[in-house]
Amino acid sequence: MTAKERLVEAAFSLFAERGYDQTTVDDITERAGVGRTTFFRTFRAKEDVIFPDHEVLLQAIEARLGGATEQTALLAVTEGARLVLRHYLAEGERARTRYRLTRSVPALRDREIAGVQQYQRLFRGFLHDWMGGGEDTALRAELMAGAVVTAHNHVLRRWLSGRADDPLREFDAAMAETVGLFTAAGEDEASIVVFRTKKDLNALLPELNRVLGRNP
Amino acid sequence: MTAKERLVEAAFSLFAERGYDQTTVDDITERAGVGRTTFFRTFRAKEDVIFPDHEVLLQAIEARLGGATEQTALLAVTEGARLVLRHYLAEGERARTRYRLTRSVPALRDREIAGVQQYQRLFRGFLHDWMGGGEDTALRAELMAGAVVTAHNHVLRRWLSGRADDPLREFDAAMAETVGLFTAAGEDEASIVVFRTKKDLNALLPELNRVLGRNP
Repeated sequence: MTAKERLVEAAFSLFAERGYDQTTVDDITERAGVGRTTFFRTFRAKEDVIFPDHEVLLQAIEARLGGATEQTALLAVTEGARLVLRHYLAEGERARTRYRLTRSVPALRDREIAGVQQYQRLFRGFLHDWMGGGEDTALRAELMAGAVVTAHNHVLRRWLSGRADDPLREFDAAMAETVGLFTAAGEDEASIVVFRTKKDLNALLPELNRVLGRNP
Repeated sequence: MTAKERLVEAAFSLFAERGYDQTTVDDITERAGVGRTTFFRTFRAKEDVIFPDHEVLLQAIEARLGGATEQTALLAVTEGARLVLRHYLAEGERARTRYRLTRSVPALRDREIAGVQQYQRLFRGFLHDWMGGGEDTALRAELMAGAVVTAHNHVLRRWLSGRADDPLREFDAAMAETVGLFTAAGEDEASIVVFRTKKDLNALLPELNRVLGRNP
């Protein structure tokens, strides 16, 4: 285990045992068997310990957005948000502990809100650039970025509170609904999609019909 | 001037002169010529003084939503948001001072975020009820409420930073764009609108064409 991982584990167990306000940075470093200097080389402040991968996730999203073409910009945004959800799912119990903490400790709730705003700003800037960056599309970019984050948080919250059995599937449906708001085709518009697959078409077709909004 | 209004005036000028953190409740009551007891009968805490009409606005929105029919629910939501914008516009310089304060004082920014979340929750609950309250419409209600608040804040921020000459007109256009996302008619759907007006039709028709998305 790295020093960072030991600090995170120590912090999460101490917050659960004593409460956030009753735990000091010294308590955390002592339990982790790591020096105070290492703590502050790794984290800026105590509240940052419960979002240890925030910067890594932001960079992963930026990398995903950076690889998009004009045709795949919206897909890149939804996949960027999907990276965050998958990260929480992989965390498992730790994500649920964080959820309890952010709902009860104002400092952590503020830290979370600030983090969500960073994602949203990243998406908004990317989408606005994609739209040409003009003043006439600023609101649309903000609405899209806000909607993607809202949909992500909606599914995440359902999973954290034990109401989503298949969160990735719910996420994909939520993103289809969200992106659909902004991409409703006009009466005369239609797209032809060509793809190659090794999947069994009998299994694929019902899913495709769902995605395309057709009744089975 | 009521005691409340004197307290608000005193607080805003002291915050501007000395800064928020350097001003105590005693400083405010002293300048306002009002007792400390009166302060805490009027406001829960120091940070509430800069949003003195928050509760009144929430109640005004609730009243507006309460008067809606099934057919006018969306209009009621956009008009609810419009009440808030008009309130800020009427405040004028005080709204701009608050904007400077919320951007520089964390406690006030938190108070503002909490206030915005209250509006959003109110809209979301109303819209979700309007949609029947089922689990299948929970995301849609959340997306709509979020979009209305985003559009409101977009125009408000433009006005606060001196970039909107005609904020109410911008607001109406922003809401038309926002509501339009959720109400795009299908190919076979069309609505007939009947209304009575005393306005000059020559002046009204170009505006109607704009609202209906027709080119002049």
